[in-house]
Amino acid sequence: MSEVHGSAVPSELSSATPESPLQRPLRIALFGFGTVGSSVARILVESRPNGVELTHVFNRNVARKKADWVPSGVVWSEDADAVLASDADVIVELAGGLDPAGNWVRRALEAGKSVVTANKKLIAYHGVELEKLAAERGGHLKYGAAVAGGIPVIPGLEQGLAGDRIERIEGILNGTCNFILSKMEKGAEYADVLAEAQKLGYAEADPTEDVGGFDARAKLSILMRLALRVQIHPDEITPRPITTITAMDFSYAKDLGCTIRQVARAEWAQGPVAATVGPMLVDLNSPLAWSRGTENMVIMSGRYGGDVVFSGHGAGGHPTAVAVVSDLLALAHGSRRVAIPAAPAKVGVEFEVPHYIRFLVNDRPGIVAAITAALARENINIRAIVQKPGFPADALPFVVTVEPCRSSALQRALTSIKTMDCLLVEPLDLQMLE
Amino acid sequence: MSEVHGSAVPSELSSATPESPLQRPLRIALFGFGTVGSSVARILVESRPNGVELTHVFNRNVARKKADWVPSGVVWSEDADAVLASDADVIVELAGGLDPAGNWVRRALEAGKSVVTANKKLIAYHGVELEKLAAERGGHLKYGAAVAGGIPVIPGLEQGLAGDRIERIEGILNGTCNFILSKMEKGAEYADVLAEAQKLGYAEADPTEDVGGFDARAKLSILMRLALRVQIHPDEITPRPITTITAMDFSYAKDLGCTIRQVARAEWAQGPVAATVGPMLVDLNSPLAWSRGTENMVIMSGRYGGDVVFSGHGAGGHPTAVAVVSDLLALAHGSRRVAIPAAPAKVGVEFEVPHYIRFLVNDRPGIVAAITAALARENINIRAIVQKPGFPADALPFVVTVEPCRSSALQRALTSIKTMDCLLVEPLDLQMLE
Repeated sequence: MSEVHGSAVPSELSSATPESPLQRPLRIALFGFGTVGSSVARILVESRPNGVELTHVFNRNVARKKADWVPSGVVWSEDADAVLASDADVIVELAGGLDPAGNWVRRALEAGKSVVTANKKLIAYHGVELEKLAAERGGHLKYGAAVAGGIPVIPGLEQGLAGDRIERIEGILNGTCNFILSKMEKGAEYADVLAEAQKLGYAEADPTEDVGGFDARAKLSILMRLALRVQIHPDEITPRPITTITAMDFSYAKDLGCTIRQVARAEWAQGPVAATVGPMLVDLNSPLAWSRGTENMVIMSGRYGGDVVFSGHGAGGHPTAVAVVSDLLALAHGSRRVAIPAAPAKVGVEFEVPHYIRFLVNDRPGIVAAITAALARENINIRAIVQKPGFPADALPFVVTVEPCRSSALQRALTSIKTMDCLLVEPLDLQMLE
Repeated sequence: MSEVHGSAVPSELSSATPESPLQRPLRIALFGFGTVGSSVARILVESRPNGVELTHVFNRNVARKKADWVPSGVVWSEDADAVLASDADVIVELAGGLDPAGNWVRRALEAGKSVVTANKKLIAYHGVELEKLAAERGGHLKYGAAVAGGIPVIPGLEQGLAGDRIERIEGILNGTCNFILSKMEKGAEYADVLAEAQKLGYAEADPTEDVGGFDARAKLSILMRLALRVQIHPDEITPRPITTITAMDFSYAKDLGCTIRQVARAEWAQGPVAATVGPMLVDLNSPLAWSRGTENMVIMSGRYGGDVVFSGHGAGGHPTAVAVVSDLLALAHGSRRVAIPAAPAKVGVEFEVPHYIRFLVNDRPGIVAAITAALARENINIRAIVQKPGFPADALPFVVTVEPCRSSALQRALTSIKTMDCLLVEPLDLQMLE
């Protein structure tokens, strides 16, 4: 056997040999003992997986957090420096956000420790740099929980789809938006569902990060690196909020055999890779339409393997903790990441897809003629015009759907259309997924 | 950093350092150059992934197989012994079946080589022994392609769900059966769809392995080892064929808000683990009902993470080859399997689920009374009795559905019912998935 892949894998944990990676349990320090952190501890305590041992918990006001079901040997601390300087092998970072979490992660990696994190923002903005640091110092950085929580999208990509060339990603990556939109599909209005989501703890007091698409774009940029093999700056993706969607749009969508979901999508295109996040029309026969409540779903389209769909619970303490503990076990077993090379790339918005455009007008003769003429000037073919009865003439909604066209051509047509003074609001333009 | 997880992971393939596993490409020998083998070669030649190099192809009548797009340095051979004795690092076994494939795999592992295989039968019957052999000799055995082809169920389980405790598996694991049953759902009869499947190459001339459930049970037993952590003998699962299903059953299923799929299912239960394979009623709102054509789908239910759904192309040259190449890349990157411990277990059939029972009778008074009395003696509650009009009295179908009951109780009731001389065929008893 060559040295290329020479170390033994035990067929069971208990049969670990001296050559195996399981010489002694990895010592685990949790940074953050909130919902996810306490779930990680719970699984470690209840399941007692071989190869890992919880040794430290760091949290602010740690006395308030201390749980009696955690083994007495665990060190509770509110001194991050002390825990970083301890003999813990792995720091599990669950604080979230760029700071101070990024500082802790950097210092742990600089010290040659490994890091497991669920921090999508940190990985989206600094993942490449942190992976490089880990490699230089002999540690490992794993973040299976950063995208789609308990659904093994990242391990599936790295270990099971690395042999394909993924050409397109379509994902429902934000459970809050999916909860809101799947409730609106049943007839509720945005403001009411948002209030319910906030009451249930699914949405923050300031929901912008979720409903504005910022959370989903961070996750999309991570998937783009692993699946499309491009390093992009997340801020290059301009998200569109779901706040512009009304019950009326769900009604029109239904007439078109569709529903509406917040979708994060990216694909190979001529020139820059195309990526966008926002509400889109989804065919009722598409798997994306099946996702309900806070579920997440990701569809990867590979050149060789075709479409692969992953779905499940994308957030919540226990599902996210499953991803964290799985990363810890992979470290303990010596499972190395399949490092997929990614090249720096620019983000474009040039898709060639059909669109749904909803107008709200003060009705007068010639509106449809003017709109269709503006579309025709850009060689955009109309698929359907739908005007449902029962609305007043001075606030009349109607919908135009168009055949696949380049995003830039449609934007030019809409810029021209937006000058019409009969429009009561800006036209709502949604991509349609087929 | 401790020696526990001390080797560096390059952030890109091209940045491989002397300490990294990518010192030289792994030398790959393909055993079998049929549909999957030539797809594996195609991906290696087109995608040129770093870390692996195709060096040998073994096939019978190799001259007939030789492809001009394969690099000229590749050795083509019909001498298995010579290729096993060569300097190839990894044998990719794609011949299938227990023999001679098992012999090749054993000899490769004995020689300290690693093996990647798509051979579900070999892994189902001999996986434990072969993994032990690999560990003893310093090689690795990977079989991501053995279950659900291009869908990363096995990598997802090992690398992303190892931190959970999976309690239930429900899967559509045989594309041939799914093709047949999803066509029958649209009104076709079994014999016609089977003939079409054979013409399209989806079914063998002798379709028993697929339609009898033997293929799915081999895959289920592999998933049971990785997900439920039990080592079972596949023959302990008694599969039930889909050949007993008629268009009439689809008609009744539809009235009950269901369709029919071949489902492989296993779950933790009191005493032995419960496992079965066969046609079942699937609620139209269940993800399992969404699978169409030759698609595969697996639902894992975890104690902590809840349900995770995987779906995609479970067979075919390219999707299966994606799984094989991904396994090769994982070997090249030094990614070790997360060896999940599994204990020997016995298989039981004791589920507690609702059932659909379809009778075909020569009608006379008292039949329903006798059947319902037999069920009542076993304390089985009836959910619905459905008799559709338009059938002759001397060949009258009707359906009884029952509330969740233990399989053994229902079998006792059916044994008693089967003695009734008005029955034209044995009652068709299908589990209902909710």
